[in-house]
Amino acid sequence: MKKKGLLIILSGPSGAGKGTVLNEVRKTYKNLEVSVSVTTRAPRAGEVNDVNYHFKTIEEFKELAHNGAFLESECVYGNYYGTLKDEVFDKIQKGLDVVLEIDVKGAFNVIGKYPDAVSIFVCPTSMEELKGRLAGRGSETAEALELRLRSAMGEIKQATKYGYVVVNDDVKECADDVIAIIKAEKCSTKINKDFINTLTGGSI
Amino acid sequence: MKKKGLLIILSGPSGAGKGTVLNEVRKTYKNLEVSVSVTTRAPRAGEVNDVNYHFKTIEEFKELAHNGAFLESECVYGNYYGTLKDEVFDKIQKGLDVVLEIDVKGAFNVIGKYPDAVSIFVCPTSMEELKGRLAGRGSETAEALELRLRSAMGEIKQATKYGYVVVNDDVKECADDVIAIIKAEKCSTKINKDFINTLTGGSI
Repeated sequence: MKKKGLLIILSGPSGAGKGTVLNEVRKTYKNLEVSVSVTTRAPRAGEVNDVNYHFKTIEEFKELAHNGAFLESECVYGNYYGTLKDEVFDKIQKGLDVVLEIDVKGAFNVIGKYPDAVSIFVCPTSMEELKGRLAGRGSETAEALELRLRSAMGEIKQATKYGYVVVNDDVKECADDVIAIIKAEKCSTKINKDFINTLTGGSI
Repeated sequence: MKKKGLLIILSGPSGAGKGTVLNEVRKTYKNLEVSVSVTTRAPRAGEVNDVNYHFKTIEEFKELAHNGAFLESECVYGNYYGTLKDEVFDKIQKGLDVVLEIDVKGAFNVIGKYPDAVSIFVCPTSMEELKGRLAGRGSETAEALELRLRSAMGEIKQATKYGYVVVNDDVKECADDVIAIIKAEKCSTKINKDFINTLTGGSI
């Protein structure tokens, strides 16, 4: 029996390692589609259009927003980001699990609209560690770093609004936790009602 | 930071393979304590007192029940069974995960009283397969078999009241699902509030 896929939100503060964890998860768990976001920010070196992001102009972005194309959209540090509704739900209907790697504000938008979404917060082991990681990027001014840290602190306080919290101490272990969460959610009774129904002759 | 353990209910109809799945789980997942039930039924060949069951007389059982010692207790096919409250919660406080392998009626009692319990229903792949397994035991009369099958059908219809459903097609895969559920539940935000609290300086 074909089951619908899961809508998975992988979120957390900047510097917690969402992207690294997600890459590790995908090495083992193959039934996972990563949603490609639309953005108005300029491509970074090595980023490919329609692979890393759908790069759009602000006008194109606004047109999409006006047409209700976005599952969620937001403005982060002056750039627009959005997730295309059709792209996500077409895949879920086909039985694929779709993961949105999005920031905390974007995550809350999706959790609010889709309570069945599996929401996972990627956490650092400590604020000191997070500071070290952000500083290690070397692309931040002291002020920008301070802003990101304050913002991260506020975001971590809201982690309890997610379904799950995974701690990114060891990337592999953290990825294993994410995979366990996905596997467990696939066993949740709420997505197995059809199976139970069939087993007992449709009399539920 | 020491986390409290989980209270896990592994249940399902007679013949679904709860015991076999649990044995497989324990080979891999070591932090799991199996609750030893009290029973008034006679020991079967090879069963050891205080290891497989606490074997008691009916009078002793009633005394325990009268003193409120049971997390749940019930009468199945003429024999009494019960789970000792103190034994379970002492282990959970120490951070151990405790699994109760109990029938559906017993499971509902626990789910009702402890909504935080992680409830897992072990399901056969089909009613035909369940019939084959029960018949294969060779210890049942045709009437007893028919009774167990009708009872199993009724129980499976109630599987949606559990948190999770695992299908015992392949024992190893089914055990992997149970382990994933335990790992996922350990990442649930509801049991990680203290960690988040500490991370953000106790200001939640």
